[in-house]
Amino acid sequence: MINQKVDQYRALHPDAQIVSLGIGDVSRPLTPTITQALMSAAQEMGTTEGQRGYGPEQGYLFLRELIASHDFQGLNISPHEIFISDGSKCDSGNIQDLFLPSARIALANPTYPVYLDASVIAGHGGPLVDGQFSKILYLPCNEENHFLPHPPTSNIVPPDLIFLCSPNNPTGSVIPFPLLEQWVHYAIQHGSLILFDAAYVAYITDPTLPHSIFQIPGADKVAIELRSYSKSAGFTGLRCAYMVICEENPLYPLWKRRHATKFNAVAYPIQRAAAATYTQEAKMELQGQIQEYLSQAHRLKSLLLSKHYDTLGGDNAPFIWWKIPPQFSSWQYFDYLLNQYQIITTPGSGFGSLGEGYLRLSAFAKLDAFEVAMQRLAALPSLCA
Amino acid sequence: MINQKVDQYRALHPDAQIVSLGIGDVSRPLTPTITQALMSAAQEMGTTEGQRGYGPEQGYLFLRELIASHDFQGLNISPHEIFISDGSKCDSGNIQDLFLPSARIALANPTYPVYLDASVIAGHGGPLVDGQFSKILYLPCNEENHFLPHPPTSNIVPPDLIFLCSPNNPTGSVIPFPLLEQWVHYAIQHGSLILFDAAYVAYITDPTLPHSIFQIPGADKVAIELRSYSKSAGFTGLRCAYMVICEENPLYPLWKRRHATKFNAVAYPIQRAAAATYTQEAKMELQGQIQEYLSQAHRLKSLLLSKHYDTLGGDNAPFIWWKIPPQFSSWQYFDYLLNQYQIITTPGSGFGSLGEGYLRLSAFAKLDAFEVAMQRLAALPSLCA
Repeated sequence: MINQKVDQYRALHPDAQIVSLGIGDVSRPLTPTITQALMSAAQEMGTTEGQRGYGPEQGYLFLRELIASHDFQGLNISPHEIFISDGSKCDSGNIQDLFLPSARIALANPTYPVYLDASVIAGHGGPLVDGQFSKILYLPCNEENHFLPHPPTSNIVPPDLIFLCSPNNPTGSVIPFPLLEQWVHYAIQHGSLILFDAAYVAYITDPTLPHSIFQIPGADKVAIELRSYSKSAGFTGLRCAYMVICEENPLYPLWKRRHATKFNAVAYPIQRAAAATYTQEAKMELQGQIQEYLSQAHRLKSLLLSKHYDTLGGDNAPFIWWKIPPQFSSWQYFDYLLNQYQIITTPGSGFGSLGEGYLRLSAFAKLDAFEVAMQRLAALPSLCA
Repeated sequence: MINQKVDQYRALHPDAQIVSLGIGDVSRPLTPTITQALMSAAQEMGTTEGQRGYGPEQGYLFLRELIASHDFQGLNISPHEIFISDGSKCDSGNIQDLFLPSARIALANPTYPVYLDASVIAGHGGPLVDGQFSKILYLPCNEENHFLPHPPTSNIVPPDLIFLCSPNNPTGSVIPFPLLEQWVHYAIQHGSLILFDAAYVAYITDPTLPHSIFQIPGADKVAIELRSYSKSAGFTGLRCAYMVICEENPLYPLWKRRHATKFNAVAYPIQRAAAATYTQEAKMELQGQIQEYLSQAHRLKSLLLSKHYDTLGGDNAPFIWWKIPPQFSSWQYFDYLLNQYQIITTPGSGFGSLGEGYLRLSAFAKLDAFEVAMQRLAALPSLCA
């Protein structure tokens, strides 16, 4: 739909220089240290001594050991509880294999669309009534609750699988400790599984916010955590992520079997590249990239604030959730920005009914495109004008 | 089980030089042309101009165009009917997403285990009775039918999904034209889908054998074909394969949706490496590798024949299906070869009940290990002695 509208606009205005604040994709190259590791491992594969065939299905131990010691320091996660995969999108869809078609799914409204789409493909949707799937439990996220999903009240049939995304795509909100504790307690009490998607954890700047659900006691029994190199290290075009599922979780043996049966590991050179992200050099390079993205988020947010618009996110996430003027729908304002400023955004209503009235801006724009967008948005009328 | 037995033997005989004819994994390095393409694309990703984020979910057009024109020349397959994936193992498991739990699955006995395991995970197994899943339709493959699966007779409830693997893992048999025609007619008549796994097609030396199910008229409506770079170009450690599903197939839109929702494409450098396999240089390099593997198969087969053993496969497949002396079970003969000759093989019974009495030998052994194995097997008693 976005592409269609952009293509239409391009056809009518072939000379327009359209810039995008829409796509949630990284724009900076792989860092030198990571590129070097990728190239070296590729070269290795071309030698008799360095040739590698099938790798361990769960991922090479060299990578899983680095993850356990760097990403989960002090949290008692073992390498055998880490499953290397080709992306959090895949993981968040594939987890459905462990649930019966009768399982009840809970997800936020608005939500990252894959949680919903994969649930529907797995047969968990039920009939569509007024734009909502009747078997899905939608967790309302709106201005009143700061776009944070809360556990359902006791009169609601408890869900079997709960998708939580923090830092959140699309809203940029981060679930704070007390609320995450509530969720873990809820899951323990009701026998639910929480899929905690922490793909954007590298963007958390506030040290008092939870970085992992495993910081909450008891989460080892009821939660799965997804992490990804996509946004932390620019791997969207390389495909490497991982799932953490603890041995205490009753689904551990099922996932282990599923993973070994239906997946055949990530390419060796890509696992070497992922391992290189833990070197001191790469950590500094990546910190630089993340700072650049966050500084773009900060500048966007400040500009909108100076014009009295309300925004969420952007401080601990690469996304800004922009409350648009009330006379516009998300799509109308999308059209307005495209036509008036040649800027592509993402309509909030695409993430769910409660995304209506919002746009998602991404901080991942290329340097030059970002500067053009900032110049153009400087002409945006103030909300109080 | 194999690993356990080998570990036990190693513990008791720490100095033994064990060689493997068991594993179905390539042993030759990536060829120079492919290594170079992989390294160049990796380097590209480290530059501002060459950086690539998310690729098209279906795979880059540059690769899909090469596949359509090289692998399916004259067969009228379009690039939009090709879906690049991270492996045929994944594809043959993921296809289950398109079927209801009530779907009936047919597969060969013996079979590549993933077809069965993924079917059981998807809920198609039913109760296990005498070692067989009662809802699965097993297609018997034995000496009488040359280990070729035949369509069920008319009194059998027709299956919804039929797994055919040709050239076959584990038996090395190849389905000839008349039988493949029968299968396509059966699928058309009964509304079944055939998943035709052609992962080993590069090993076919007899030009009169079918290389693709799409050589059979009507297959475009009822068949899916899997191909892989794993065995044709040594990609087991790189992960790249593809599925062909024609627009005439009613499942086309469903697969397209499933693929885009639950998968996020193969790494750009790996797609570049796959594209490099179609260059004239790489084709020659790869033909050399395949000849080496086939020549190992040929030498193994000749040695066994000289000792009056019956074998199948090895001519148009990298696997030899070895009929062992009748007084042994597969596992007993596995033990015998491990203890007597320090050679690892794969017991046929692991592929299904009709694999009992056979061993699978792989032609993928490393050069030096292969020569050691040949020397040792020279001492094998003749079956007629």
